[in-house]
Amino acid sequence: MKVENHTIFVQTTAGTDILDLTGRVSEVLGESAVRNGSVHLFVPGSTGALTTIEYESGVVNDLRQAIERMAPEDIPYEHNKRWGDGNGYSHVRAALIGPSLTIPVIEGRMALGTWQQIVLLDFDNRPRERRILLQISGE
Amino acid sequence: MKVENHTIFVQTTAGTDILDLTGRVSEVLGESAVRNGSVHLFVPGSTGALTTIEYESGVVNDLRQAIERMAPEDIPYEHNKRWGDGNGYSHVRAALIGPSLTIPVIEGRMALGTWQQIVLLDFDNRPRERRILLQISGE
Amino acid sequence: MKVENHTIFVQTTAGTDILDLTGRVSEVLGESAVRNGSVHLFVPGSTGALTTIEYESGVVNDLRQAIERMAPEDIPYEHNKRWGDGNGYSHVRAALIGPSLTIPVIEGRMALGTWQQIVLLDFDNRPRERRILLQISGE
Repeated sequence: MKVENHTIFVQTTAGTDILDLTGRVSEVLGESAVRNGSVHLFVPGSTGALTTIEYESGVVNDLRQAIERMAPEDIPYEHNKRWGDGNGYSHVRAALIGPSLTIPVIEGRMALGTWQQIVLLDFDNRPRERRILLQISGE
Repeated sequence: MKVENHTIFVQTTAGTDILDLTGRVSEVLGESAVRNGSVHLFVPGSTGALTTIEYESGVVNDLRQAIERMAPEDIPYEHNKRWGDGNGYSHVRAALIGPSLTIPVIEGRMALGTWQQIVLLDFDNRPRERRILLQISGE
Repeated sequence: MKVENHTIFVQTTAGTDILDLTGRVSEVLGESAVRNGSVHLFVPGSTGALTTIEYESGVVNDLRQAIERMAPEDIPYEHNKRWGDGNGYSHVRAALIGPSLTIPVIEGRMALGTWQQIVLLDFDNRPRERRILLQISGE
């Protein structure tokens, strides 16, 4: 059994940017010798998160709206009063969804559902170059 | 160190079905040679999720109601307008909770708390046969 | 590749106590021989959860308030009617956030962002001595 570390870079926009990473992760996995094991994804930083969803613009917008209800952008945040960068809502959203996702790899492929894609949620209020760590482990 | 892939099948009902998987997972683990490592659970599909809770019908209903507040069934969803299957709320709920859960295995047992059970949340609006992937890795 | 099991104990207070575990986890990792792999954290029990956040008291309070909106302390919970321990909200909050977190280890260090800390959220309504399981695996 072995561990491989990879990194994916993506460019995001301001606002709640939700990006499909599935193709990029599959490409990296395709070059790995691991046939059975897992892919672990992690987003370093406190305003990004990872989950899965059917990557169809309707439901992606629906998710954006649910998150806006949970941690609205325009209510007062103590973080903003202290640091003045206006992204208190971004930090709260990222903490609620979480930075970590593990997907089983079986016979060389990620065991996702047919309509299930891996997404990065970038909640920050400015464009970012995001680094996503991709750890493949197994045999 | 090794990796074993297993699958559990469960039958769900329509509505937010919350099922205790702990016994089923323990059974599979009991037949494994892994003594120290982890069990990783993953639900393929974009309308299911996994977490832990005390599996007691009161608090299970309380969780159902909290999720209904976060992503109500009867508000408009763009997904429904486009695809007409009426399960926009199911997709949003699943993305918020997440499809993946990892539990340490120590001396052949899952290190759950006394009142902590593994649950599948099936948010889809129709009965499903669900497949849960169970990956055991360790020594 | 190998697996090491460790335990961290922390003392929490009543209310939604949010504690930074990063230093404690780093100390344990510093004594491990694992250079590439992962740290998996798990909180046994159904009223605790784990995530990451910038551990700054402003945004920590903001997170506390978002969670209070999602599962308010003072609304009726079926769990409370049946069990009388008044912590129905604690169980629901813990199930929503989740008990499990995995962080990649690269060249002997956790690959966290600069302002990203590991936090335990103890939602119980009484002080607890909490046990957090820390599993280090890799090479």
